[in-house]
Amino acid sequence: MNIILASTSTLFGGQYLEYLKPELEKLFADVDEILFIPFARPGGISHEEYTAKAASFFSTIGKKVRGLHEFEDKAETINQAKAYFTGGGNTFLLVKTLHEEHLMSVLKQNVESGKAYLGCSAGSNIGGVNMKTTNDMPIVYPPSFDCMGLVPFNINPHYLDPNPDLHHNGETRETRILEFLTQNDLKVVGLREGNWIRRIDNRITVEGSQLTRIFEQGKEPYEIESGSEL
Amino acid sequence: MNIILASTSTLFGGQYLEYLKPELEKLFADVDEILFIPFARPGGISHEEYTAKAASFFSTIGKKVRGLHEFEDKAETINQAKAYFTGGGNTFLLVKTLHEEHLMSVLKQNVESGKAYLGCSAGSNIGGVNMKTTNDMPIVYPPSFDCMGLVPFNINPHYLDPNPDLHHNGETRETRILEFLTQNDLKVVGLREGNWIRRIDNRITVEGSQLTRIFEQGKEPYEIESGSEL
Repeated sequence: MNIILASTSTLFGGQYLEYLKPELEKLFADVDEILFIPFARPGGISHEEYTAKAASFFSTIGKKVRGLHEFEDKAETINQAKAYFTGGGNTFLLVKTLHEEHLMSVLKQNVESGKAYLGCSAGSNIGGVNMKTTNDMPIVYPPSFDCMGLVPFNINPHYLDPNPDLHHNGETRETRILEFLTQNDLKVVGLREGNWIRRIDNRITVEGSQLTRIFEQGKEPYEIESGSEL
Repeated sequence: MNIILASTSTLFGGQYLEYLKPELEKLFADVDEILFIPFARPGGISHEEYTAKAASFFSTIGKKVRGLHEFEDKAETINQAKAYFTGGGNTFLLVKTLHEEHLMSVLKQNVESGKAYLGCSAGSNIGGVNMKTTNDMPIVYPPSFDCMGLVPFNINPHYLDPNPDLHHNGETRETRILEFLTQNDLKVVGLREGNWIRRIDNRITVEGSQLTRIFEQGKEPYEIESGSEL
């Protein structure tokens, strides 16, 4: 397998996908066209607008982008494609669309066969076992929370440390993930912005500029360094 | 109807339910026992621990509290009770439990018949039309997102304004609610901590120390003052 699951598409003050550019040149080295999956629709933008945004970045490394929404037979389009990028946005909307169109398992099979896959944020959530550690608002009801399981754990993208200055009583991210562990026995990778998971064949590592926080049932949360195997 | 739906149980630096005490003395003036619904389990605490916490507060205003989890026939227990309090925690866990035990509609009918109801946070979300504007993590999969619709809109508890100092690329609360409106034509009440919704018969107002932010399809979000009718 040949996968990047990134916490975010964009670093604070940066341009779309810019910080990942050297990694993406390697991930997509063998292909000249990428199939973009725009269903998460960040901020409610249209599939067309979102695909244009992805295409604009990928043109800077010489790759063509087509949006999956453009095609009638989407399963066949996924089977014919050589590489994939699922953009961020709302995970509930993304997962609902993929399940309703019976595409989750088609995409999984193709990525597991070795085709390159990039996910950012919601697009990374669907690389985990299920979407139960997304940060997104449940704006639509998906027929299932199950995802592709391209890695044997769940991902919490945009992982955020508690802010002791915030005089607010909403749950911290850590509290939410610990609540998840009371109901599910599954490792959660708290992926801070600037970090990504890299899978090459059977080797899975965490990469990027930050430490990564790991949550497991019955253990105190702990930090691992960039380059560590998962 | 006789309902309070509060943004939070606890203000920063305050004690559990303390800021609502004068309101709760009025809400529950005619009853000496309250049925507590502990299923949201904040931080994963047990039903017993959570019920003890609620009972400890309500003893200060002379009310007895029993936990719904203590009873075999839960629907009959709801029908026999004279007043209700649903505590905060994880909305997905709360809604899953209520739907799986077929209690959502039983509770709704009793509250609509005029029995006093207090909800905090997740307990307020279930007073809305559906739970699609909760902030919680989807740690379990409920059979439906539908809620009681005790008010003809949705609630976003713990509403939080964007923090311009936060160098983080996760969505703001406002962005999330605007995404909800791209998929649903339903008013959302962004209820800041310190505020609550008060329904007495057919009159619904927003109360508390803060302004309240309202989101509707096709309009700019706007603020209303404490005491305004909804």
